[in-house]
Amino acid sequence: MQTDNLLKQISFIKEIDKLKYIQRKTKLFNSDRNENDAEHSWHLAMMTIVLAEHSDKPIDVLKVLKMVLIHDIVEIDAGDTFLYDTVKDHTNSEQELIAAKRIFGLLPKEQADEFIEVWQEFEVGISDEAKFARSMDRLEPLLQNTSNNGGTWKEFNVPYQKVYDKKKAIKAGSAAIWQYAENLINESVEKGILKK
Amino acid sequence: MQTDNLLKQISFIKEIDKLKYIQRKTKLFNSDRNENDAEHSWHLAMMTIVLAEHSDKPIDVLKVLKMVLIHDIVEIDAGDTFLYDTVKDHTNSEQELIAAKRIFGLLPKEQADEFIEVWQEFEVGISDEAKFARSMDRLEPLLQNTSNNGGTWKEFNVPYQKVYDKKKAIKAGSAAIWQYAENLINESVEKGILKK
Repeated sequence: MQTDNLLKQISFIKEIDKLKYIQRKTKLFNSDRNENDAEHSWHLAMMTIVLAEHSDKPIDVLKVLKMVLIHDIVEIDAGDTFLYDTVKDHTNSEQELIAAKRIFGLLPKEQADEFIEVWQEFEVGISDEAKFARSMDRLEPLLQNTSNNGGTWKEFNVPYQKVYDKKKAIKAGSAAIWQYAENLINESVEKGILKK
Repeated sequence: MQTDNLLKQISFIKEIDKLKYIQRKTKLFNSDRNENDAEHSWHLAMMTIVLAEHSDKPIDVLKVLKMVLIHDIVEIDAGDTFLYDTVKDHTNSEQELIAAKRIFGLLPKEQADEFIEVWQEFEVGISDEAKFARSMDRLEPLLQNTSNNGGTWKEFNVPYQKVYDKKKAIKAGSAAIWQYAENLINESVEKGILKK
């Protein structure tokens, strides 16, 4: 049984290597190089550990880490959806659910069920852990875009109000981090790297 | 105080982006593309979550995750040392300690101290958490090299005994994973992708 589990887990570990090829729209800090999903997930995990003290609610940090580490794995099959995509909705699509079932389904049943549950909890975004995880997911590209003279906001003509509305999800996780983020957005308008 | 902490944490979060540029010798699975340290750290974190049940000793998974997520951050200043380097020792060098103090030192004092401690615990490798974290760090490139027809073993002429001696660290974390790994090494010899 243990060996059976291990073989399934190893095949999952090999499969998820593909996350390193999924390119995001966002660029690395002060850079022209696109970030990939594995790098992004690592960065969110580090941010979670470092910033957990600012969560408004007590959170299970291990749970949040699981969320941010796995949240984009479905994109191996479903592809990355740009946060400001005007056609495709960013939320839990049918295609993503099929991907979750296939990829997490490589794991032993109990673990597969847990991963699908954790991923869905993140997507639904209601639990305190999901709120904090989502605030990390919104904060990283904000920091990247401000370091890149507007980054994807400029590249894809995303206006202030759209950015503000999307980034407001940070507030649900942490008032302190939202205060910082809101200032950053307003400063970006003043600097002319985000259009009002 | 909270704002002061947050600003320090944000500067750390920006600094560690550089881990995405540190190239390892090892290539991605079935690939010619070098892996970078951020991708590697993400993969070890996923492996930790997935394989924790095989640890011989009860482990604090959150602690192991912190270890694998931060274990290579010192390489931002100190550079990557190849596991089979014949000149430079892979273990905790003076240069790495200076790097740890500078980079983790960007964080608020208490957090900086914790990160340096966790990193040193990983490097020393005596605690149950460190043993498991190190077994993950040895397993990933083993899986990669076998998927790449010998990978760095062939590229740098690393013989069986050297591989075996280094990989044996897996045994200290998990007998079950070591059994799998040992088989994989022996099979590699039979396949002619590792020289005895």
